[in-house]
Amino acid sequence: MKFGGTSVADLDRIANAAARVKEEVDAGNDVIVTVSAMAGVTNQLVGYVDQTSPLYDAREYDAIVASGEQVTAGLMALRLQAMGLSARSWLGWQIPIRTNEIHGKARMEEIQTAEIEKRFAEGQVAVVAGFQGISPSNRITTLGRGGTDTTAVALAAAFKADRCDIYTDVDGVYTTDPRIVSKARKIDMISFEEMLELASQGAKVLQTRSVELAMNHGVRVQVRSSFDPSPGTMVVDEDEIVEQQVVSGIAYSRDEAKITLVRVKDQPGIAAAIFGPLSDSAINVDMIVQSVSADGQRTDMTFTVTKSDLGRALEVLETNRGEIGYEDLLSDDNVVKVSVIGVGMRSHAGVAQTMFRTLSEKGINIQVISTSEIKISTLISEDYTELALRALHTAYGLDAEDA
Amino acid sequence: MKFGGTSVADLDRIANAAARVKEEVDAGNDVIVTVSAMAGVTNQLVGYVDQTSPLYDAREYDAIVASGEQVTAGLMALRLQAMGLSARSWLGWQIPIRTNEIHGKARMEEIQTAEIEKRFAEGQVAVVAGFQGISPSNRITTLGRGGTDTTAVALAAAFKADRCDIYTDVDGVYTTDPRIVSKARKIDMISFEEMLELASQGAKVLQTRSVELAMNHGVRVQVRSSFDPSPGTMVVDEDEIVEQQVVSGIAYSRDEAKITLVRVKDQPGIAAAIFGPLSDSAINVDMIVQSVSADGQRTDMTFTVTKSDLGRALEVLETNRGEIGYEDLLSDDNVVKVSVIGVGMRSHAGVAQTMFRTLSEKGINIQVISTSEIKISTLISEDYTELALRALHTAYGLDAEDA
Repeated sequence: MKFGGTSVADLDRIANAAARVKEEVDAGNDVIVTVSAMAGVTNQLVGYVDQTSPLYDAREYDAIVASGEQVTAGLMALRLQAMGLSARSWLGWQIPIRTNEIHGKARMEEIQTAEIEKRFAEGQVAVVAGFQGISPSNRITTLGRGGTDTTAVALAAAFKADRCDIYTDVDGVYTTDPRIVSKARKIDMISFEEMLELASQGAKVLQTRSVELAMNHGVRVQVRSSFDPSPGTMVVDEDEIVEQQVVSGIAYSRDEAKITLVRVKDQPGIAAAIFGPLSDSAINVDMIVQSVSADGQRTDMTFTVTKSDLGRALEVLETNRGEIGYEDLLSDDNVVKVSVIGVGMRSHAGVAQTMFRTLSEKGINIQVISTSEIKISTLISEDYTELALRALHTAYGLDAEDA
Repeated sequence: MKFGGTSVADLDRIANAAARVKEEVDAGNDVIVTVSAMAGVTNQLVGYVDQTSPLYDAREYDAIVASGEQVTAGLMALRLQAMGLSARSWLGWQIPIRTNEIHGKARMEEIQTAEIEKRFAEGQVAVVAGFQGISPSNRITTLGRGGTDTTAVALAAAFKADRCDIYTDVDGVYTTDPRIVSKARKIDMISFEEMLELASQGAKVLQTRSVELAMNHGVRVQVRSSFDPSPGTMVVDEDEIVEQQVVSGIAYSRDEAKITLVRVKDQPGIAAAIFGPLSDSAINVDMIVQSVSADGQRTDMTFTVTKSDLGRALEVLETNRGEIGYEDLLSDDNVVKVSVIGVGMRSHAGVAQTMFRTLSEKGINIQVISTSEIKISTLISEDYTELALRALHTAYGLDAEDA
């Protein structure tokens, strides 16, 4: 059972979360609880670090920031004890959760289960401070933002748990953002692959990395609300889902910016000349389209980066203008990437066509297209975000009947 | 170098403390810094614990509360790095500082020095989170309130340091409280024994336990201000002090309450009948006086407890009235204990007489007297606190010449 920052934001919410834990214990389950820092605490600690030293030592950053989860874990254990349960807190170094040395975004390498399993036999609940581990040098490491999701899934895998319940402030995964599309439906079951695409294409309910980990270890994840007892969304292996939808969900990301290099030379090595320097500057490029060359000599190259990388990307391209040899450099950050996701695409034709036709019917121009086996993404003007989402949601038959 | 909560209350103060550390490093010293939690943090965490579970598990309390020092240690290390020094933070479990299992007030049993000494050779400053250690069961322990003083002295002893500097918000130990006696003087050097008596008799500048530890290991302690570069007070072995004062300081404690049992039976076992039940209830009794029995059959027994224990002490005595057999039970919490302290008393007669005469001349009635080799304490009405302190300070020749 994982409780995020808003689910443990204050002592009342910790008590509420503890009550959910007690229900599972009363149902006869062995339970590991993992908790984030109380909402706001991590940001405060990160603020201290940034103000103290802009070029900080990530090892100290980790020791400081990991303290937030340490506090919540202790408080959760105390609360469970106050409710009559046996419980104790575990810090990353106590279990231990061994990670590599990459401070600030460490990867877990080994979780010892013996000690906690011994306590299960005595009916004790393990409360694990999320987001942290211990490096080979005996220093505290953290797993990066959202790391407590990853901790929860990794624990579930290590202990071969029946389920990993991620408690959050929404009651599940939706077919699209319900704040934009009122007819969005909660999904009962979704496959790992689809969840992974939804997460990487902008749905914020689960961290990409934790979904990846769950998929690799076959951990059944449930996304559910800390405040609403109804079942949430089960993220499971594709084979478990009897009635597969063609399209499961529609994600969007406003964190996109488009760059176009006008009339670059259409010759071997040009892609390397463009994307090499960007990669060297740690700028990730997402969608790429090279328009058909009319004369066989010059072509336009369009691609996307995150909004926050746009400025740096333009600088890098200006600097390398000589080698690349473009005529003009255009950019646009008023764009959104809309992605339609579903494993059913593998066996159903016409899914892409439905997307293109639907957008066209609403007069929405598609600027860039990219596809994968179970996903079609289009880049459109940000102004049409809501219109596109609603139209696509209806077109793919996802609208709730009673909404 | 130990910095308490007010010396690291915010990032500016941490920067100020770091500047003091740099001075010592620049002077060619190997430095261990130990820090408390930022002022207010420990109280906030203790508040969380109390609200979560009134009968808390001290092991969880320790894990929660120790996080405060963890944050400050990391921030101090970062700040030192930002100033161009090599520095790293150390948590109790990393060094390790091994303690017993008494959570909430653990005693240190062993400090490993090898790792930190290796870093000294590389010019690295060690920043140690104060107040904490690790138990034989691999749980975080804390040393009790003021524990960072104890951490500092214990580290100084383990590393055979030349000096243990305790940075605080006053610039040294004074002959008495300068807020009450304007002519109070800063003491340049004081012996361990005197400092111990001052601390136990009410002077708050150092924790009793840390002074005891310093005395036992011969650690030279300097009490000094984080905000004022002038030298503070050196607490050293008696032999180091060339010109010994007869009286070094005058302490007072308002945290006293007086209880009198009127006309108890003057017979063997009566003290046990009174103090046994109090001791069983964990109530400490301090000064005790048994008045001369006029008829050889009945006597009055007077003693002091802390103000906070008074209510419980009276309850215990009421409950045991049958066995004790007193005629009346009186109490008074409007009292103060004033103590005159100095190793010179060992060799000088008349020190007590000066105290009694001085108080008498001011018309102050002495209610209880207790003495030790280097201390005379009197219990008087709290109303006379300031008057008594000023008169005694003058009588013992302690007044500053220029004040």
